[in-house]
Amino acid sequence: MRAAILAIGSELLGTTRLDTNSLRLTAVLERYGVELVGKSVIGDDEAAIAAELERRIATVDLMLVTGGLGPTADDVTRSATATALGREITVDEEVVAAIRQRFASLGRRMAEVNRRQAEVIAGAEILTNTHGTAPGMRLEEGTATIFLFPGVPHELEHLISVHLEPWLEAQTAASGTAERVERSLLKLACVSESDVEQRLAPAYERFGRDPIAVLASPGEIQIHLAARGSPAERRAKLEAMRRHIRELAGEAVFVEDRDDTLEAVVATLLDRDGATVSTAESCTGGLLAERLTRVPGSSGYFHGGVVAYSNEFKTRLLGISEELIATAGAVSEPVARAMAQGVRTRYGTDFGIGITGIAGPGGGTDAKPVGTVHIAVAGPDDDAIEHRRRRFPGDRQRVRWQTSQLALEMLRRILRARVPRSPEAGEKPTMAQTGAT
Amino acid sequence: MRAAILAIGSELLGTTRLDTNSLRLTAVLERYGVELVGKSVIGDDEAAIAAELERRIATVDLMLVTGGLGPTADDVTRSATATALGREITVDEEVVAAIRQRFASLGRRMAEVNRRQAEVIAGAEILTNTHGTAPGMRLEEGTATIFLFPGVPHELEHLISVHLEPWLEAQTAASGTAERVERSLLKLACVSESDVEQRLAPAYERFGRDPIAVLASPGEIQIHLAARGSPAERRAKLEAMRRHIRELAGEAVFVEDRDDTLEAVVATLLDRDGATVSTAESCTGGLLAERLTRVPGSSGYFHGGVVAYSNEFKTRLLGISEELIATAGAVSEPVARAMAQGVRTRYGTDFGIGITGIAGPGGGTDAKPVGTVHIAVAGPDDDAIEHRRRRFPGDRQRVRWQTSQLALEMLRRILRARVPRSPEAGEKPTMAQTGAT
Repeated sequence: MRAAILAIGSELLGTTRLDTNSLRLTAVLERYGVELVGKSVIGDDEAAIAAELERRIATVDLMLVTGGLGPTADDVTRSATATALGREITVDEEVVAAIRQRFASLGRRMAEVNRRQAEVIAGAEILTNTHGTAPGMRLEEGTATIFLFPGVPHELEHLISVHLEPWLEAQTAASGTAERVERSLLKLACVSESDVEQRLAPAYERFGRDPIAVLASPGEIQIHLAARGSPAERRAKLEAMRRHIRELAGEAVFVEDRDDTLEAVVATLLDRDGATVSTAESCTGGLLAERLTRVPGSSGYFHGGVVAYSNEFKTRLLGISEELIATAGAVSEPVARAMAQGVRTRYGTDFGIGITGIAGPGGGTDAKPVGTVHIAVAGPDDDAIEHRRRRFPGDRQRVRWQTSQLALEMLRRILRARVPRSPEAGEKPTMAQTGAT
Repeated sequence: MRAAILAIGSELLGTTRLDTNSLRLTAVLERYGVELVGKSVIGDDEAAIAAELERRIATVDLMLVTGGLGPTADDVTRSATATALGREITVDEEVVAAIRQRFASLGRRMAEVNRRQAEVIAGAEILTNTHGTAPGMRLEEGTATIFLFPGVPHELEHLISVHLEPWLEAQTAASGTAERVERSLLKLACVSESDVEQRLAPAYERFGRDPIAVLASPGEIQIHLAARGSPAERRAKLEAMRRHIRELAGEAVFVEDRDDTLEAVVATLLDRDGATVSTAESCTGGLLAERLTRVPGSSGYFHGGVVAYSNEFKTRLLGISEELIATAGAVSEPVARAMAQGVRTRYGTDFGIGITGIAGPGGGTDAKPVGTVHIAVAGPDDDAIEHRRRRFPGDRQRVRWQTSQLALEMLRRILRARVPRSPEAGEKPTMAQTGAT
């Protein structure tokens, strides 16, 4: 099956907005093994839409259209489609009643202009929309099927799951499922793309390049896997690929098969252990605390943090001696260690993280260029403060992001190496006991 | 002049990437008053690209194509264009020499495959590309002009400024500049879209709806203005619109004609006054500190902050009495005020901001539902602590974002109302002196 996507709306031809609805539709098409041959965007121009539809339905089996189903004069998808197919449009009084009812349930009266949204093209199946006023439509023309969807993302989402997916399910069930694609995802933190590519070489050899795609962003690598075939084949292929990549990439994989963030994975590990953490940040300015508290329920493991930008804050809130700052420098390993240990012991948490560095653009020196950061993680075992020094590339925001990413990754690896606390055990394992130093 | 954009690349038909190059091209087209009639994306399919080009150049004056100029077998834009126009392709040895030279300057040898990038379509003007190996091309076919650009964003950027803009300049100079568009932007914080729409009614009346577009996101409204005509007319129109909207929207406008963030505007005001600020955050978890320190040079005005998630942190770091928390509740006006005043006086800054609230999804009650926040800003005048209570809609991240936005906006309005410190004055003005209570 071959498909095309058409997004309608003059606002999508401006300088600020892109048609992101197509990504959602593409994901569904991929899952059902439908080939997407092209996407296009057209303004609210009836003749242009009609021409595009006529041209496309001559060459594809499935035409997905979003937008232009609103109540105003510039919503012309219905009339353009009717023109392209040479069909009549009539107002369906049942649909009018449903729209009126929707307004009433919100305590409002339906405006007369909303009757436009009840215009139905001859032969169309109406796709009910309980998340908005505009119903969608499904039409058959020759060998092609056309879906008209509203452009509002959550309404589109709703119509996809209630109307498009069941239809694709039925179509592909009839024609066999051999072409369906199933996907899986592995995420890795704080490794370079070239390092991952090198480690994956045996997997490329074994499975080919096509089913494995590596996407890199600062501090994070995503490995997307795809498998075709029958449901059992797809599952087996994905599992084989995942197992092989786990062996190759080792503990750098922080999550599999879910799009969880690194902070969410750290949160799960802290929850597992009933462990708590506090933060002492300089150059990241609160970003680490902010990420740790993005996760709902973070008050269970996060007690608080200090953003110690000035030396006075470092001294008064973290107990770091002025002498240490003067001799070692504010951006140094001893200060990062003292920040981690200071925040941990002063505020009574199991772990403490200290970060100091130069995010730029100013403040760099030859010895400590912009991008230099020191990260320390102090744990329940006083002797086992982990420390990393890095020089990150990129601008201020990228340096800060990568620093917070590495801090979370250091904590994740420490937590991962700990033996999960069993309910019977009287004490939490220390880092020394588990060897995670 | 009517234009269409075609982006080529199978990766742009996947689930993760969008054609963002078109936004950059659209901005240029708008500036020169060229109407964009449609955009499309096609995979690396020679026949499909050729068909799309043939169709488009029959209806537009300007066809902008990006991508598919690389050296590998799936880069088929050159051959597809030659097919569509019925022209020959030859390898241009001068271009080969230039590519070879580029590799040499990087200390590398040109691979044989790169000769493909020297393929030139008969009649094409070669668009030199000093930022990459693939040159672009400009072709005339009937009344249409076709530009072929590489898809790599910084190479495209380079070719736009060196080749496309001068060409458009020449075209529009010949045909008069009446159709060019000039734009301006105003940004407002912490006002609702409907409120802005209502306030803008007289501006719509006076200038029409078309040149004024309102874009809303949580906690921020952008008003985009557009003016056509001669350079002098455009400037006069924009200035008249800006002045009128400033009158209507009042002090809610935090920046004009630049895309500065709210934190950058606050930073400028703090710098102007030589004032300092510290933060005490609960539900925002460090987001406010993080935003204040996104701005380069923030150590000049930001000394530090406390993320006081647990009551113990609030007591020990901010000096808030356990009794107050017990009687008023952790999420309350008195606690927010005490946090603001506590962080300000304890750590010796001019301003202190206190935030406490329920970001959700858990923790809400009937009296204090999810989204309830208290924000307090303490200034140099001890009696003048400003406080706001709000209930923000949306999920955890939106509640946190809007809270940080309102905190920054409160501080901005206080700073804005202060008389700028003159270098002669011995003392900074207090809030009472400027009446900004």
